[in-house]
Order: sequence, then C-alpha cells, then structure tokens
Amino acid sequence: MTYCVGMLVRDGLIALADTRTNAGVDHVSSVTKLHVWEQPGERVLMLMTAGNLAITQSVVSLLDEGGAMDDGTTLMNVPTMFEAARLVGAAVREVHRRDAEALGKQGVDFVASFLLGGQIAGRRLRLFMIYTAGNFIEATPETPYLQIGETKYGKPIIDRVLTFETGLREALKCALLSMDSTLKSNISVGLPLDLAIYERDSLKLGLQRRITEDDGYFGGLRKKWTDGLAAAVANIPDPDWTW
Amino acid sequence: MTYCVGMLVRDGLIALADTRTNAGVDHVSSVTKLHVWEQPGERVLMLMTAGNLAITQSVVSLLDEGGAMDDGTTLMNVPTMFEAARLVGAAVREVHRRDAEALGKQGVDFVASFLLGGQIAGRRLRLFMIYTAGNFIEATPETPYLQIGETKYGKPIIDRVLTFETGLREALKCALLSMDSTLKSNISVGLPLDLAIYERDSLKLGLQRRITEDDGYFGGLRKKWTDGLAAAVANIPDPDWTW
Repeated sequence: MTYCVGMLVRDGLIALADTRTNAGVDHVSSVTKLHVWEQPGERVLMLMTAGNLAITQSVVSLLDEGGAMDDGTTLMNVPTMFEAARLVGAAVREVHRRDAEALGKQGVDFVASFLLGGQIAGRRLRLFMIYTAGNFIEATPETPYLQIGETKYGKPIIDRVLTFETGLREALKCALLSMDSTLKSNISVGLPLDLAIYERDSLKLGLQRRITEDDGYFGGLRKKWTDGLAAAVANIPDPDWTW
Repeated sequence: MTYCVGMLVRDGLIALADTRTNAGVDHVSSVTKLHVWEQPGERVLMLMTAGNLAITQSVVSLLDEGGAMDDGTTLMNVPTMFEAARLVGAAVREVHRRDAEALGKQGVDFVASFLLGGQIAGRRLRLFMIYTAGNFIEATPETPYLQIGETKYGKPIIDRVLTFETGLREALKCALLSMDSTLKSNISVGLPLDLAIYERDSLKLGLQRRITEDDGYFGGLRKKWTDGLAAAVANIPDPDWTW
C-alpha cells in the first residue's frame, strides 16, 4: 500500500509520500513515489503515485519520454498545470490501452492514482488528483489537501489542523503527523519518506528531503506527538456518569 | 455506514456504537446498533451490528426468538460466551440461507459483522467479532479492542492510548475520542451514540446511555480534544530544515 498527501496552502505546496511497496508479504521493498520535474525560474512539478507499481512507473516513464500524447508533450514542456494534469491522465489511459487486458487475464485490477502539484511561470500554483480513468479533481481553498493510497488513518488530524491559511512549516508538521498516524496503524505504509516543499511563485524547488528512521526531527516529532496526545487525553476529565 | 468499537480491559467491557443508517443519501435515519441481553446475577451480553440493516435486524430477531439453531437456543439460555458467538454465527448463516440468493439477484452484497461481548455466571468476560461467514475472532490482552464498520479513522487514537490495563473510565474516554475522529471525517457515521459499560464479574449492566448532540460531557470532550490536539501540534517545534 501507499500513503501520499499533498497540501496546497497560501504560501505554497507540500508533497509527502512513503516508499513502501509490496507484492505479497514476502516481497517488500522501497521505491520512490515522489517525482519532481524542475526548471528553475520556469516550472516546478511534483507527482506522487499510488497503486500498481508497474502501472505507475510506466506512467512516469511516458511523462518523461513524451509517450503519453501523439505530439510528444512532456511535463517539461506542457504549457499549463491543467494541461499537465490532462497529460498524466493521458499517460494512465495509454498504459491502460497497452496493459489492462493482459492484467485482467491474470486477475490483476488496473488501479493507479496520482497527485500532481506545481507551478509554471505566469500561471497559478495548483494541485490535482488524477484517477485511474484519467479524469481529475483539484484542491481548493476550502479543502486544501488531497490524499491517495491508505488515506483514512491520517485524515482526522488534517481535518482538524489544516486550512488554506496554515503556514508552510505548520502544514509540514501536519503532513508529518498525518503520516505518523498512518505508519502506526498500517504496516503496509513504511519509512523512509520522501518530502518536497515548494514556495508559491518561487519557481524553484524549496526542499527535497528523504526522511529515514534516523531523522532527528521526525523522531522527535513522533515522540512529542505521542506525549502530547497522552497529555491531551489526560486533560479531559473522566465522565461523571455513575454506574 | 457504521462505527462500533468494543474494548475489553482488565476492569470490564465498553461498547460504543453510532446510530446512523442510510440507503442512499436521501434515506438517512437513526437506528440502534447496540443490543443488550441481561439477566442480573446470571448474564450480560452486548451485541453491536454493522452492515446491511435488513440482515443485522434479522440476525437480532433470530437471536431473540431462538430461530438460529434447531434446538431453539437464544442468547438468554446459551451456556457460554463461546457458544453465544457460535450462535450469532449460526444466525448470520441462517439469514444467508434465507436471503442471500434473492439479494444477489438484486445486486446487493450480503455483508454483516458483529461485536459480541459479555459474561455468563461462572465464566470469563469475553469479546468476539463475528464475520459475515459466521466465523469469529476474539479480543486478547495484546489487542484489547475490536471494531466494525468504518474503522480506520478512529484506530490511531486507540492504538496509542488503550492497553488491557487501561482503566474503564480512561478506556471510555478513548472510545469516545475514537468515535469523535470518525464523526469528524465520515459523514455516514452520526450521532446519537449508544453506549454500554459492564464491570467485570458484576453480572449486571453497568451503564446504558444514549449520547445525543446535547450531551454535556461529550460536547465538552470534543471541545477539549480539539483544543488539546491544537496544543499538542503547537508544542512540536517547527522543522529547522532550510529552503
């Protein structure tokens, strides 16, 4: 399984993905699910992937090589973020055209989903979720985040904390806490994590970081969060109901 | 949808269920999913239900009327909790025998699951989860809780807080917090809630309570929890990563 979350706030964009992949319980390994395309001063795009790894890796290759559309468009030359989301959708459809029938014969479902965020010079910063069918939706100020993969464990904390006005560092903490809840409850989501941060209108990648077991900040965050939750529970008085 | 959680700790048993039921978005109503059978001094059994309402209500009727097994056994005369769990399984299988084919013709999946907890005089307090197939598993000191329905949103807080040694009132708080996370993230789970508490070896129902929108304690818990989470997030320092 997978957990990826994208957050689009006033100050910018956060992309956070786990790296665990498995085909059965005895075939577990680590792959990146966060891909970045950057031309400083001109565009920064981030793509996160969930679903069948063969499908999602083929999609990324098509996006790199220009095989998604007949005119050879890639994420490095597509003119707008809306067209970039369409391009990802076209890539999924192309992989579906090539592989879905054969997968179906093996009883393998064709499943893949994507979060695409970024900005192209002169255009707005946007964040999209692209479905298996190639259609897509967009994050809005009312709901400034999108998730793919194992989304439920990490949703409550985001729903409580994140708004469009949340600062980038606070949003980053929120994303890490959301990931921590997912890591704790679902063994199919695992470290290390891949993180990318983009400041609105900067047109260059802010931070790209791999967070491992040894990461001091993430380790401290997990410890403080455990302690803080215990304190929050302890601060709620016991019910005075009698029985 | 539904969210029900059962917790079996050293001091006793907690059962908490929401009441929302829906068949499509324009057919939403409230039903109890928590059923109690009690003969003070002799037995207390609690059953929570999730899944297709027609199926779960039929199961409850069979358990009341003795129609689950040929010998007319009911939850009021079954000799042990293990046999009670078997009886619930037999009731599901009987409803399956009667209704599954007709449901299948309408394209309706046969889905139902149950949490059964309680104690019979001279026997241990136990908590079971019964699946659609009528088979079942049991809560253990290592994993002292079971959930049915929309389980994921409310799992992280339980995983952090609850152990077998957690006191009954603390466990009750934890159950209510788990429900609160689910209520916040999934509109198909809704108030009021049904709560039942049983103290180990008491052989009488401790508390049975309907928690509505107006419940002062639950309202306060939700407010304090929101504030406590905000404080816990605020207490985590921002990452010192630079970009």
